[in-house]
Amino acid sequence: MSRMKEISENVIIDSWLEHFLRTPRQFNEPHEADAELIEIPGDSNHYFAITIDTVAEEITTGLYKDPYTMGWVTVMACLSDLAAVGAEPLGMVVSVSVESGRDKTFTKSIAQGMEDACRTLGIFILGGDTNITPTISLTGCAIGIVPRKKVITRCGCKPEDALFITGGVGAGNALGLVRLANMPDDYFPEESYRPVARLKEGQLLRNYATCFMDTSDGLLTTLDQLMRLNALGFIIHCDWEKILSPQVLEFCNHTKTPHWLMTAGPHGEFELLFTIPSKKENEFLSEAQSHGINPIRLGRVQQTPVVSLALPSGQRVNVDVAPLRNLLYTVEGDLKRFLKEFIAFGKKWGLEEKMNEN
Amino acid sequence: MSRMKEISENVIIDSWLEHFLRTPRQFNEPHEADAELIEIPGDSNHYFAITIDTVAEEITTGLYKDPYTMGWVTVMACLSDLAAVGAEPLGMVVSVSVESGRDKTFTKSIAQGMEDACRTLGIFILGGDTNITPTISLTGCAIGIVPRKKVITRCGCKPEDALFITGGVGAGNALGLVRLANMPDDYFPEESYRPVARLKEGQLLRNYATCFMDTSDGLLTTLDQLMRLNALGFIIHCDWEKILSPQVLEFCNHTKTPHWLMTAGPHGEFELLFTIPSKKENEFLSEAQSHGINPIRLGRVQQTPVVSLALPSGQRVNVDVAPLRNLLYTVEGDLKRFLKEFIAFGKKWGLEEKMNEN
Repeated sequence: MSRMKEISENVIIDSWLEHFLRTPRQFNEPHEADAELIEIPGDSNHYFAITIDTVAEEITTGLYKDPYTMGWVTVMACLSDLAAVGAEPLGMVVSVSVESGRDKTFTKSIAQGMEDACRTLGIFILGGDTNITPTISLTGCAIGIVPRKKVITRCGCKPEDALFITGGVGAGNALGLVRLANMPDDYFPEESYRPVARLKEGQLLRNYATCFMDTSDGLLTTLDQLMRLNALGFIIHCDWEKILSPQVLEFCNHTKTPHWLMTAGPHGEFELLFTIPSKKENEFLSEAQSHGINPIRLGRVQQTPVVSLALPSGQRVNVDVAPLRNLLYTVEGDLKRFLKEFIAFGKKWGLEEKMNEN
Repeated sequence: MSRMKEISENVIIDSWLEHFLRTPRQFNEPHEADAELIEIPGDSNHYFAITIDTVAEEITTGLYKDPYTMGWVTVMACLSDLAAVGAEPLGMVVSVSVESGRDKTFTKSIAQGMEDACRTLGIFILGGDTNITPTISLTGCAIGIVPRKKVITRCGCKPEDALFITGGVGAGNALGLVRLANMPDDYFPEESYRPVARLKEGQLLRNYATCFMDTSDGLLTTLDQLMRLNALGFIIHCDWEKILSPQVLEFCNHTKTPHWLMTAGPHGEFELLFTIPSKKENEFLSEAQSHGINPIRLGRVQQTPVVSLALPSGQRVNVDVAPLRNLLYTVEGDLKRFLKEFIAFGKKWGLEEKMNEN
């Protein structure tokens, strides 16, 4: 690991973890995996994977207005963490805290979002807890199992490994920008933000990948975290037509939004970012295709621990993602300032001048 | 099950569950167990046990003022649910949502409460999630395993089974009364509310008990729920010196609080209430003693589905716990009205006239 402490979120997580004794039965170190991996007593062939995730800030800041989205994301966020360790899910539990004044239509819609997400993935809600609280908060916890021999975490990529992603990104940040910039809702309707956890892909990837992680915090944040964890860097070929989802491309064209912004914001989706040794690339791609999986080749791992964007113009720009990841803390939650300073990174990084297509 | 729908909380839980498809791999039906019990693929000898619990209302209503208590209870509430299915814990994850203005001393104290609770039980926090939210909310999720052959749930007691509890109760309700009645804090200091999950007891009980459940919602609520689930009743011998913890007895004497109130409030602790077939009673008690466990005999199971209090005076009073369990909903969260109407149940049930000792 390298320079993990430059990132406010890592520091906050560590400030909690430093109080807690760790069990020798845990396979992963802190930050190393999207889900926690624990030995199962009496079963030397599997680990147990568990993850917990709360959807609250996305609601209180007005990012999600539709209770169906709130329920959907609560399920998908947890299952994406299981996908990102290649686990087979056993189910999940949920804790729903809603305000006392909420009508039944609202809570029904949360439940429907949760259930539809579960059915999409073929998983089940096992039980849960309900509370009445001053502000809404939805927490999910999912469990699964993963064969010990096939455990892949966020750590383990090597220079020259090929870098892939399971699908086009940007939907989370498109919705985020609509909210922050007060654009009309229909510029990127909330109901088009229905990210799906990549469970099938995760289970295939554990046979090939050297590391993987989900893009729940956005593409650049994910790359930056993998860079720090592996003390290696990445070169990304900025072929936006491939990297961004069709709806996001349309949104960018319609609103004249620079493409890079859709990979840089902190509100991601649930694609898996992963690395494959070059010599296994063909075999992997052919097996993926036979399962109907069509990953996008983003670039490759490089020795220098930096995120480099290879622009369509042929130029290469090294971007320091740390100040961008820390921005929400720097502006102390002031979302107007956040948006203004966030967009300014394009100039700071020299992206705007060097990009032909924007 | 019988008349489950008379209880508002059961109705609320069902209103969520009715949206969710259940997995055929789940052993327990809704309401039947303190933790969810799931088949483990490839292991026909064990179930996974999982539970989720949020501590939020206890904080926003001012019941817990000390962040250490908040952390402590978050851990203990989850582990108590595992204890109440006889599970061996594998660990837990936590999601901590705190207000942006909280200083480090506050969050450190939450973490310390969590960690001390873990060390008390010999368990570990595996990881978690952190959020910044307008109001504080702490969620824990604990997992464990339990041998399939030894699974005991809330259902299964028989008439004439002996009714026991693992320890003296009332601490949760003593603290609750101090807060609701605006008594001075030192009448029942918050730091004396440090309930401990009965893990060791739960693992012993699975060899003997016909049903068990924790007292996290108070003794009478627990009895009422078991009554509905089993369609059987209970006779409780109201020997308060045995049933209430020494500190609670002292609190009652000091504040002239009727003893029954300490068993009736909704803020319990983490004792296990359980039933043992009469013919196994001696064997159980002798093994319990050899493990340093000294359960309290509360009474017995009766055919008639009613909770009967056998008073020290020799008189017997049947109490209808439903309106008391529903009171928080009836008064729509008005805590002053709650306290007034709650205390009035003593008169309504005729307890005050019939009790000699109050």
